[in-house]
Amino acid sequence: MDERVLTGDRVTGKLHLGHYVGSLKNRVELQNNYDIFIELADVQALTTHFDKPEMLKKNVRNITMDYLASGIDPEKSTIFVQSLIPEIAELTVYYSMFVTVSALRHNPTTKSEAEAHGYKDLYYGFLGYPVSQAADITFCKAKLIPVGDDQLPHIEQTRRIVRRFNQLYHPVLIEPEALISEVPRLVGLDGNNKMSKSLGNAIQLDTTEQDVNEKIKNAKTDPARVHKNDLGHPEVCPIYAYHRIFRSEGADEICESCKKGTIGCMECKKKIALSINHLLEPMRQRRADYLKKPEIVDEILIAGTQRARKVAKETMREVREAMNLDYFCSK
Amino acid sequence: MDERVLTGDRVTGKLHLGHYVGSLKNRVELQNNYDIFIELADVQALTTHFDKPEMLKKNVRNITMDYLASGIDPEKSTIFVQSLIPEIAELTVYYSMFVTVSALRHNPTTKSEAEAHGYKDLYYGFLGYPVSQAADITFCKAKLIPVGDDQLPHIEQTRRIVRRFNQLYHPVLIEPEALISEVPRLVGLDGNNKMSKSLGNAIQLDTTEQDVNEKIKNAKTDPARVHKNDLGHPEVCPIYAYHRIFRSEGADEICESCKKGTIGCMECKKKIALSINHLLEPMRQRRADYLKKPEIVDEILIAGTQRARKVAKETMREVREAMNLDYFCSK
Ligand code: SF4
Ligand code: SF4
Repeated sequence: MDERVLTGDRVTGKLHLGHYVGSLKNRVELQNNYDIFIELADVQALTTHFDKPEMLKKNVRNITMDYLASGIDPEKSTIFVQSLIPEIAELTVYYSMFVTVSALRHNPTTKSEAEAHGYKDLYYGFLGYPVSQAADITFCKAKLIPVGDDQLPHIEQTRRIVRRFNQLYHPVLIEPEALISEVPRLVGLDGNNKMSKSLGNAIQLDTTEQDVNEKIKNAKTDPARVHKNDLGHPEVCPIYAYHRIFRSEGADEICESCKKGTIGCMECKKKIALSINHLLEPMRQRRADYLKKPEIVDEILIAGTQRARKVAKETMREVREAMNLDYFCSK
Repeated sequence: MDERVLTGDRVTGKLHLGHYVGSLKNRVELQNNYDIFIELADVQALTTHFDKPEMLKKNVRNITMDYLASGIDPEKSTIFVQSLIPEIAELTVYYSMFVTVSALRHNPTTKSEAEAHGYKDLYYGFLGYPVSQAADITFCKAKLIPVGDDQLPHIEQTRRIVRRFNQLYHPVLIEPEALISEVPRLVGLDGNNKMSKSLGNAIQLDTTEQDVNEKIKNAKTDPARVHKNDLGHPEVCPIYAYHRIFRSEGADEICESCKKGTIGCMECKKKIALSINHLLEPMRQRRADYLKKPEIVDEILIAGTQRARKVAKETMREVREAMNLDYFCSK
């Protein structure tokens, strides 16, 4: 059987080009050689959005549609909803027993939040994020976790929890490994380091052709270029960054022309808008196809969650046995 | 329908006379007028005993047998195993989102442990004990929690969590109230303030008549009394404390005779041993009856857990609806 990979997204909003470049593209390739589990992390979204859970219902479906549009094949990949796997909560509770508050404080994400908000006022669930992550990874016995190298500490925390569990009880959990992939980070339309919906500098995957053209037209460029023959600095221009990622074959030429002042920003933007629309076009097609039968999104989610649940139940049975919590033969 | 009461015990060992006096006796009476849920808190036992889960399997059955022997009627009371209600873990995870680390640190039990072990090295699960308690109380919508007045802060923490949940989402949870009962604390055979198995100063509920006599014979008394006519100080003697609790009608007389030096400790001990055996005798009878059909303990646990699970599923359905996590109609 193919090795299992766990990946997923916090259910906080629709997906954009940054997600595509940073993870979806990779998943679409991985699904041919691995048994991919894709988690819609609604419980983890609650750690920071507990006061607006109403957005989850819509976003669970929106993101699934984004997956399908991107080329995730529900026959190959298992898309499931985190909160519908109670075994993840159970494992979180069991792992909580032997993870110290001190270890959790050293998690880099928690650390920076703690600095921002003051340690004492952190929410208990937020502090426990790495424990919940370990539960996500281990319930399905994922062997590989696609991450950028900045996320290695997260995997390391899970590996420590797995080793501790296996040593305390019985070695039934699998120690996951990072599947490090080159994950390009997409800059925002405003030149901000990160494309993000909340910054309003993103191109959503469901953006129409016309809207892509519009957004690119309004995007920031090198402020030194007012006239076509002003000499440019492509390295400060988000449009040039997009050329590198979406139109790599022509990017060197753009770089040169921009520096020499032989291409206007308008023309340069038209080229990249064309490429982005070229990338999004098959996604629009797939989305339109799925939308012809809108109930299919729910069907896919229910089927994926059932598949994940079956795996979760089996792991939980092994975990209970390892912990001597298998009280009754019938269970 | 009768109001629901939640009570229970951490699954750390067999029960003794201190448990009977402090809670079992009260439960046996309550079960006639309330819908009592009795939780075998194995998950909570793990917060401090995660490295010896093997004792749980045996103790779950031992304690159930102690309940039955004490007169808990499985037709009236619902005895269930905490770890077999995954909804408790789910609720724990949801409540974790909006409870701060700071609030948990102020819990009196956590505070004293924190002082003993140093705050940073507390286990994450231990810190979250009050959250897990709130999950226990709310999954079954218990209205009343029998406690001594030293435990009021625990109930208060649950009440805060309930109010916060109901205000954030939708008022589906019930704010529990303390059912304060006079809970006599039984001193140990060695005169220690508390009878406790781990201190080796306890009389287990399954102690034989002969062993009770032996244990009482060896119990500490007023050290000033060497000869029968030495004047005694009953207030420092555990045997006198037992007279007050188990033989209240004759306790005043004992007090007087002891002070005057007109009763020997041997005679005084014989009287109390008789009373304790008198109390334990019907328990021995019931235990012997149940032991004739040993599989009944498992049957009672499975039936009670199923009953509790049904309630838990219904609460979880309401909680998911309140939180807008009811994604699919079929769920
Ligand atoms: S020509 Fe292209 S790369 Fe150069 S500043 Fe204009 S948009 Fe940016
Ligand atoms: S007479 Fe009874 S109460 Fe007095 S010291 Fe002896 S055992 Fe204790």
